[in-house]
Amino acid sequence: MIKAGIIGATGYAGGELVRILLAHKDVEIKWYGSRSYIDKKYSSVYQNMFQLVEDVCRDDNLEALADQVDVIFTATPQGFCASLINEKILSKAKVIDLSADFRIKNVKIYEEWYKIEHKAPQFIEEAVYGLPEINREKIKGARLIANPGCYPTCSTLSIYPLLKEGLIDPDTIIIDAKSGTSGAGRGAKVDNLYCEVNENIKAYGVAGHRHTPEIEEQLGYAAGKEILLNFTPHLVPMNRGILITAYASLKKDVSYEEVKAAYDKYYEKEQFVRVLDKDVCPQTKWVEGSNYVDVNFKIDPRTHRIIMMGAMDNLVKGAAGQAVQNMNLLFGLPENEGLNLVPMFP
Amino acid sequence: MIKAGIIGATGYAGGELVRILLAHKDVEIKWYGSRSYIDKKYSSVYQNMFQLVEDVCRDDNLEALADQVDVIFTATPQGFCASLINEKILSKAKVIDLSADFRIKNVKIYEEWYKIEHKAPQFIEEAVYGLPEINREKIKGARLIANPGCYPTCSTLSIYPLLKEGLIDPDTIIIDAKSGTSGAGRGAKVDNLYCEVNENIKAYGVAGHRHTPEIEEQLGYAAGKEILLNFTPHLVPMNRGILITAYASLKKDVSYEEVKAAYDKYYEKEQFVRVLDKDVCPQTKWVEGSNYVDVNFKIDPRTHRIIMMGAMDNLVKGAAGQAVQNMNLLFGLPENEGLNLVPMFP
Amino acid sequence: MIKAGIIGATGYAGGELVRILLAHKDVEIKWYGSRSYIDKKYSSVYQNMFQLVEDVCRDDNLEALADQVDVIFTATPQGFCASLINEKILSKAKVIDLSADFRIKNVKIYEEWYKIEHKAPQFIEEAVYGLPEINREKIKGARLIANPGCYPTCSTLSIYPLLKEGLIDPDTIIIDAKSGTSGAGRGAKVDNLYCEVNENIKAYGVAGHRHTPEIEEQLGYAAGKEILLNFTPHLVPMNRGILITAYASLKKDVSYEEVKAAYDKYYEKEQFVRVLDKDVCPQTKWVEGSNYVDVNFKIDPRTHRIIMMGAMDNLVKGAAGQAVQNMNLLFGLPENEGLNLVPMFP
Amino acid sequence: MIKAGIIGATGYAGGELVRILLAHKDVEIKWYGSRSYIDKKYSSVYQNMFQLVEDVCRDDNLEALADQVDVIFTATPQGFCASLINEKILSKAKVIDLSADFRIKNVKIYEEWYKIEHKAPQFIEEAVYGLPEINREKIKGARLIANPGCYPTCSTLSIYPLLKEGLIDPDTIIIDAKSGTSGAGRGAKVDNLYCEVNENIKAYGVAGHRHTPEIEEQLGYAAGKEILLNFTPHLVPMNRGILITAYASLKKDVSYEEVKAAYDKYYEKEQFVRVLDKDVCPQTKWVEGSNYVDVNFKIDPRTHRIIMMGAMDNLVKGAAGQAVQNMNLLFGLPENEGLNLVPMFP
Repeated sequence: MIKAGIIGATGYAGGELVRILLAHKDVEIKWYGSRSYIDKKYSSVYQNMFQLVEDVCRDDNLEALADQVDVIFTATPQGFCASLINEKILSKAKVIDLSADFRIKNVKIYEEWYKIEHKAPQFIEEAVYGLPEINREKIKGARLIANPGCYPTCSTLSIYPLLKEGLIDPDTIIIDAKSGTSGAGRGAKVDNLYCEVNENIKAYGVAGHRHTPEIEEQLGYAAGKEILLNFTPHLVPMNRGILITAYASLKKDVSYEEVKAAYDKYYEKEQFVRVLDKDVCPQTKWVEGSNYVDVNFKIDPRTHRIIMMGAMDNLVKGAAGQAVQNMNLLFGLPENEGLNLVPMFP
Repeated sequence: MIKAGIIGATGYAGGELVRILLAHKDVEIKWYGSRSYIDKKYSSVYQNMFQLVEDVCRDDNLEALADQVDVIFTATPQGFCASLINEKILSKAKVIDLSADFRIKNVKIYEEWYKIEHKAPQFIEEAVYGLPEINREKIKGARLIANPGCYPTCSTLSIYPLLKEGLIDPDTIIIDAKSGTSGAGRGAKVDNLYCEVNENIKAYGVAGHRHTPEIEEQLGYAAGKEILLNFTPHLVPMNRGILITAYASLKKDVSYEEVKAAYDKYYEKEQFVRVLDKDVCPQTKWVEGSNYVDVNFKIDPRTHRIIMMGAMDNLVKGAAGQAVQNMNLLFGLPENEGLNLVPMFP
Repeated sequence: MIKAGIIGATGYAGGELVRILLAHKDVEIKWYGSRSYIDKKYSSVYQNMFQLVEDVCRDDNLEALADQVDVIFTATPQGFCASLINEKILSKAKVIDLSADFRIKNVKIYEEWYKIEHKAPQFIEEAVYGLPEINREKIKGARLIANPGCYPTCSTLSIYPLLKEGLIDPDTIIIDAKSGTSGAGRGAKVDNLYCEVNENIKAYGVAGHRHTPEIEEQLGYAAGKEILLNFTPHLVPMNRGILITAYASLKKDVSYEEVKAAYDKYYEKEQFVRVLDKDVCPQTKWVEGSNYVDVNFKIDPRTHRIIMMGAMDNLVKGAAGQAVQNMNLLFGLPENEGLNLVPMFP
Repeated sequence: MIKAGIIGATGYAGGELVRILLAHKDVEIKWYGSRSYIDKKYSSVYQNMFQLVEDVCRDDNLEALADQVDVIFTATPQGFCASLINEKILSKAKVIDLSADFRIKNVKIYEEWYKIEHKAPQFIEEAVYGLPEINREKIKGARLIANPGCYPTCSTLSIYPLLKEGLIDPDTIIIDAKSGTSGAGRGAKVDNLYCEVNENIKAYGVAGHRHTPEIEEQLGYAAGKEILLNFTPHLVPMNRGILITAYASLKKDVSYEEVKAAYDKYYEKEQFVRVLDKDVCPQTKWVEGSNYVDVNFKIDPRTHRIIMMGAMDNLVKGAAGQAVQNMNLLFGLPENEGLNLVPMFP
């Protein structure tokens, strides 16, 4: 039995970790960390867990936790994990950080986009970017996993094969992303009130969203060169789900079959990436509650561009599900253990 | 391995049966019946099942099905099951009917409220009303299960203990119910279009909804006498969930503890009925995707009434989940097999 | 030109006052009071007002305001108006208070339900309850209007004629109410976040909501005796709209026509109360953005009860629209001036 | 008093025309055409119009109508207007066609994208594209107005000034559009059911949506050359609103001020186009129910692209509101008559 501790267990990503791990046959949650609700019953914060979780919330104490568990999930704001992580902790427990602290290799870029000083740059090199479909082998031997951001997961997986195969011009990539509101977190802000979000759609963080350099870094590896791209997220009136619609110029005329073959080359054996049938557009509802990313594409011969689409549950494959997928790899379990979640519709 | 056939597999309740049975370790779905989509891939109708279900939809043929499977689920319109059921079918396979055909013992009442002639009255007596929390033992030996309606499940379970214990006056019951839109089915009607339902709430079937006599019959058993009550359903802009708010006059002054004890007496050992802590009101979101019914109550000493509340996922405990619970009982499996579904939030 | 000042202009009711008064040909808004946004442009808080309102927000100063305007709207939390109102203010400007401070004649009941001391009990007697359909003549001569609560407006207007005509038993009234989320205000609370409200319904304030005594008082006048009733509000995932479903026992057998005649007697000449055609249930969407209350009823001969229904926009007839209706009466304008708002659908 | 007839009065755009024209002081609606509801009371189809509209629905008879009214609005499916229009009708009444029949000057392109034969090509040249901000003078003298599509209105107005001023490369335009569900019409289709749209987002018509050539034609006029672009619409779970996010490469380095000046040059005097303040992103909720288009932009110096954004109510400025704006111009009324609609929030 793997003992797990969750820091930030009362955020939406933390709550989703609890949901998934409760049904994971090899894991026992030993620590529900939540600075805001210390000593309150976890199930009084999330009543869906009534009679399922009897524990109370505890302080966010990484060191104490490392003595008691095998794996620590930090579902915390930027800077938290980096400010506390140390060699002692890493020598005792695996750490899967759901924040951005260790996702970006270039610390200057991190500090520029996140506007905070990085407190543990010495671990950046060691940390492994936890996108199993791309870094599976590296993940297996890691101590510290940088769990990818929601938008970067969906964007990277939707575009990666075409860059890798040299089918698209890396300097022409535009990603227009749409996210449900759980991505904005559980903080009490006027902007996230029901009446402000409902019946409304808006772009935000235009030309400045912090997931941009993360996507650029990952797609840069695929392209074999540095990439600059446009990434525009939008807030959509729904709880869960991310849809990305990406555009790029084709390097040459290609057929549907050639592009399909490129996707299949990378994803045919991947359980959690589903390349949909021709002309079927991904919909967020079809992956809700599951660890799937649905991808597809459409060639526009008029403009010589290709439109790439990906849909995903931001709290599962975009956060907690992927974290568990990484945990499974770290501990030598079947990668899909606890993750055979059938999407819920409607 | 139990072989299962689903008639009406492309309706919302049918789809939910597929979702639950796919994750049930003792069941194999052998037949996806759907008159509207014969020969189409099931996963082209419900793309959430892409790569999970490879079968095509087949005609609704009960007789052919009975030869091939151990259990038949009929998630079909009123009258369908009654018009086809016969001794031969029942001798070969268990039948769990999710329609209203065999829920009401008095055929006249059925015909009056449903405005159709009952085509198989000879099986009404034999059919067992599949509410495991109340009829568990009878269900185990049945051949034909009348799977309860969504509103009746939530209403009955919320009110039953207080009638049974004689705490409320059975002639004063008023049930005000609120349902998500999946309860209206997947038929293409203007009334169920997104723009008609969204940002809107209305009552419907006022003083005439067909679940009324079903609730009256079940609560009548608890009261030990015939009951007439008011039942008013409302359509709420959400996909899933039923909330009932019921009112009744107390027969005498009672304390919180006395009423709580009544609920506990019936539900303490029930996995799927959760009596919430004092002053916590049930919310549909806390049971979404799960087989739970959350119940609670509030005494109003000013009016000598009690307000009883129940929340449930109409497609799970209100339809497919309860059907699987019944199937488990019919086949001697643990009652919760495949039903340990953790509610999804948000 | 009537000069108007709004205290609490950046709350949802305040914003709606601005929307309505901007289109009112006889009114000029001179003061946008908002403690939270002092010196910020009003249209930077509500961008829908961009280029329509150029003013900045100002402090909540009732005395300063009384010198500059003819009418003051206080769309503020309970206790605010009572703590500042005085003879000097009332001698200079009409005050329309959208809070509960002056709605309840019995100060003890106010203090009991609102848990605050009333700071200006000397004005309670003088204040007129601003429900024009019932108190029209008194309103015309008032200095201080207690603008009714949203639930009380919809509840009272739906039930009033039947009590007045003695058709229902006043001791059997149960009101089950459903409200959109704007009724919860614009405060930044976790409970009102999009993800907590969306896809969810719950009761709240069960047997203890503060609108209960207000409804009881108003219906008590109609019944000619003190009334105790049950009132249960629910939070619905939509921005606007209140639906009430009320139940009462009939005093004797009545026909549809008799009850219809009772409603018509009181509302035939009322522009803002629409008694719908037989069997048409009120829907909140049909009154959205307008000052209408749609009412209707259904007799249940089986239980000898009647179900009364009412739908209304909580921010218009339930707050700002009714306040403007009162203002029109106070200043001798046509009662519907600025209020001929056609409901928006969908 | 202008006499108006509406063909297709029971669709969502038709219903919005009714809402706006009822409050227009110079117009009287004489004909509510609706093939689906002939002889039914209009207000029984749209209960929001109860007591506001007493007329019944009538057949769609253009010729009969032309004798009785001054202006005919055709809010009908593609092909309807073209199949019935003739010289006699146009000699008697102005026609404002809300379908696509007369929007595209090149009949081959129309027939290719709409897959129907054009039945009245002889009127294409005469028809005026009814985008007042661009074609105001031509509109004034027209007999037949091609009322622009919803997406084209928002797209064209958001991009037009930058093309006109030569700031962006016309060969690099990508438009990612998001629309509320009323844009899909009121037809009873499974795809538009509440449960299919709610909690979901998807792209549709990718690289093939019929509004593409309309946008290309209009922007081509601005660019002074033929344009091919990418246009991808998405279905968003909300009733109303269109948001477009458009991308293009800048021809040279430009400052915020230069781009702002370009927008101001074209829109400073336009009442219905609001160029928002710096860094404020348009939101559909801020224009709901009004005739405004809110536009803004963001320069991305990293990629040398500009992101242009526009938000609009698809039923108002995207359909009925713009039709009324055109009508005002045709009849010499103030352009904003009946259109001073304050956006409703929340």
